[in-house]
Amino acid sequence: MNVVSARQPVRLRDSEIFAAHLGGKLSMGCTLPIDTPENLSAVYTPGVAEVSRAIAADPSLAARYTWANRLVVIVTNGSAVLGLGDVGPAAALPVMEGKAALFKRFAGLNAIPLVLDSSDIDEIVEVLVRLRPSYGAVCLEDIAAPDCFELEARARAVLDCPVLHDDQHGTAVAVLAGLRGAGTLLGRPVETSRIVVLGAGAAGSATAELLLAAGVEDVTVLDSRGILFDGREGLNPVKASLAARTNPRGLRGGPAEALHNADAVIGLCSARIPESLIATMAPGAVVFALSNPVPEIDPVIASQYAVVVGTGGSDFPNQIINTLASPGIFRGALDAGARFITTEMKLAAANAIAEIAEDTLSADRIVPHSLDPRVAPAVADAVVRAARRV
Amino acid sequence: MNVVSARQPVRLRDSEIFAAHLGGKLSMGCTLPIDTPENLSAVYTPGVAEVSRAIAADPSLAARYTWANRLVVIVTNGSAVLGLGDVGPAAALPVMEGKAALFKRFAGLNAIPLVLDSSDIDEIVEVLVRLRPSYGAVCLEDIAAPDCFELEARARAVLDCPVLHDDQHGTAVAVLAGLRGAGTLLGRPVETSRIVVLGAGAAGSATAELLLAAGVEDVTVLDSRGILFDGREGLNPVKASLAARTNPRGLRGGPAEALHNADAVIGLCSARIPESLIATMAPGAVVFALSNPVPEIDPVIASQYAVVVGTGGSDFPNQIINTLASPGIFRGALDAGARFITTEMKLAAANAIAEIAEDTLSADRIVPHSLDPRVAPAVADAVVRAARRV
Repeated sequence: MNVVSARQPVRLRDSEIFAAHLGGKLSMGCTLPIDTPENLSAVYTPGVAEVSRAIAADPSLAARYTWANRLVVIVTNGSAVLGLGDVGPAAALPVMEGKAALFKRFAGLNAIPLVLDSSDIDEIVEVLVRLRPSYGAVCLEDIAAPDCFELEARARAVLDCPVLHDDQHGTAVAVLAGLRGAGTLLGRPVETSRIVVLGAGAAGSATAELLLAAGVEDVTVLDSRGILFDGREGLNPVKASLAARTNPRGLRGGPAEALHNADAVIGLCSARIPESLIATMAPGAVVFALSNPVPEIDPVIASQYAVVVGTGGSDFPNQIINTLASPGIFRGALDAGARFITTEMKLAAANAIAEIAEDTLSADRIVPHSLDPRVAPAVADAVVRAARRV
Repeated sequence: MNVVSARQPVRLRDSEIFAAHLGGKLSMGCTLPIDTPENLSAVYTPGVAEVSRAIAADPSLAARYTWANRLVVIVTNGSAVLGLGDVGPAAALPVMEGKAALFKRFAGLNAIPLVLDSSDIDEIVEVLVRLRPSYGAVCLEDIAAPDCFELEARARAVLDCPVLHDDQHGTAVAVLAGLRGAGTLLGRPVETSRIVVLGAGAAGSATAELLLAAGVEDVTVLDSRGILFDGREGLNPVKASLAARTNPRGLRGGPAEALHNADAVIGLCSARIPESLIATMAPGAVVFALSNPVPEIDPVIASQYAVVVGTGGSDFPNQIINTLASPGIFRGALDAGARFITTEMKLAAANAIAEIAEDTLSADRIVPHSLDPRVAPAVADAVVRAARRV
């Protein structure tokens, strides 16, 4: 593995990127040879009829003799792709193909992208319900808030399989893992740190929720109108719920008020964080500027003030990204035969990622590298154990 | 290629078949390596964002930089799987996985199975419409008549991509190719042969239609109630239309009346054909017993009377099966950028298959072997040329 050296951005020329994507990035294959009459008649008719007959007689055999039970569908309508916004399903597909490729590469899971031309939650749920015999788990991706909350809740309620909105929970797990790494490095437990979450969309709200579940006492969340506080007018239910359980010091105002003396800021908003505000953070500050492809603040500038800086891209050290979490989470949930992906599984996943980073912990290595082959198996194992504790 | 010798059935033990299907038969892969920060940042963020941005700005680029444009979705609700009947979507999946594997093996096309838990045509069409940005062509499979006719017509009308019900048209193309091969062998042109089609479901009706389109003058079609004739009571629209254009000698009755002196019988009905009726056919008879996995008559028995016998399975010579046709048809339609798969393309596909068989034509080789690597490229080429003639 050729891990990028610290502060050495990886930059590809556009021509290289487009050449790599020509014709798409995914390829189907068959696990069996098809080159003799014998194996042809096993893969297809007449042999395959025996397998169909057996499943018709005992539907539980579908899990054993089809790929569906281990297949993750990666589902989006393209309404919030990376930090690009609502680019739609066709433009979302290269990202979904990439995610499917990473599921295979890191967790050995088959995954296929399903990009939907629909902005209607009912319609998306209907498609998933009708296709239910085709797959084993649903990874929702790049769907805008607040629809993503309702869609995930509805899908979890009606589908008898694991469902996870990766932008919410995969990101939250990666952030918690990164904060644990930084906390260990700096000797400052995450539970007693002042943590500011910039953004109350999919990733921001789920990250705040997971920090609360992890026992962090001082979380402050901001949306585009400023700090969430209990009683603020016009909050949607997700934000109102967060407002009631965060911001223990009763802060009012915007980023300036929130970042002053904060130990860590988690940028999940696609807006810019001014350099002048980073300068007001507490000594030994942690800055995660996670918007993709453009971080909320240039990590080189942020590192003039902060001790630890992370981004969402693979072109800087400390890539805090849901792909550290979700391949292993899905693998573990499927291995465990879990019906739901629980908060306990997510906390266990974050701890598993943080434990791997401990071996080589430094300001540029607070999380394992995205290509570290130990991560997904360790996360999967932790998720399986969490599933069995239920 | 180890082609099966004549009259030497290939029989696999059940244990071998089930072992081959363990965990399913399909596997996703990535066309690019993911092992360095450079190629990770090309496959996924931040590099992939450039591709998404480009497609958002120019949607036509999706065809160039995603896999969707070349992806066939293999769609069923499992209502008529092989000759097994309505076994449902989960039990249909091993067959759909097999078909996807054959698309890759023969035509180099990526294909994924989508098995739907729905018997409602509207619902199935809705799913296909909503998923439209995900794929490039629709192969409908193993959907019962008469729903399959309406579903195919509706899908063709609303989807701006090739749609084909393989059980109808793939089978029809293979049958026409086989009849052409037998006709050349026997010196009896298909156009002037008396041909009986047993079955007026998906495969039977489409086969009769293609025979008519090919200029066959004497086609007689039977359903479970007997010979279709103009004016017969209670015919659905598909059968009524066939009745008006077939049976030129005005036959009445059942299989006995139809098979008497017939040159060829095409079994597409899953019912048994009595040996005694095969004995009444014209000299030099052709018997295609195409139901799967159990032919309408044992091919060894049929060959006591008929000069040419074909089945749908790979365990006997002369496998007359839609997989000879559909991989190349889809490949050609996608290569040509065709909006529709036309009758002209189907006729061209049948001729291309028959031409390959001419090299080694014999009573046991009226069609190319299912594993013959020349078939799909030749069919694709013929389909492309037919598309350009439109």
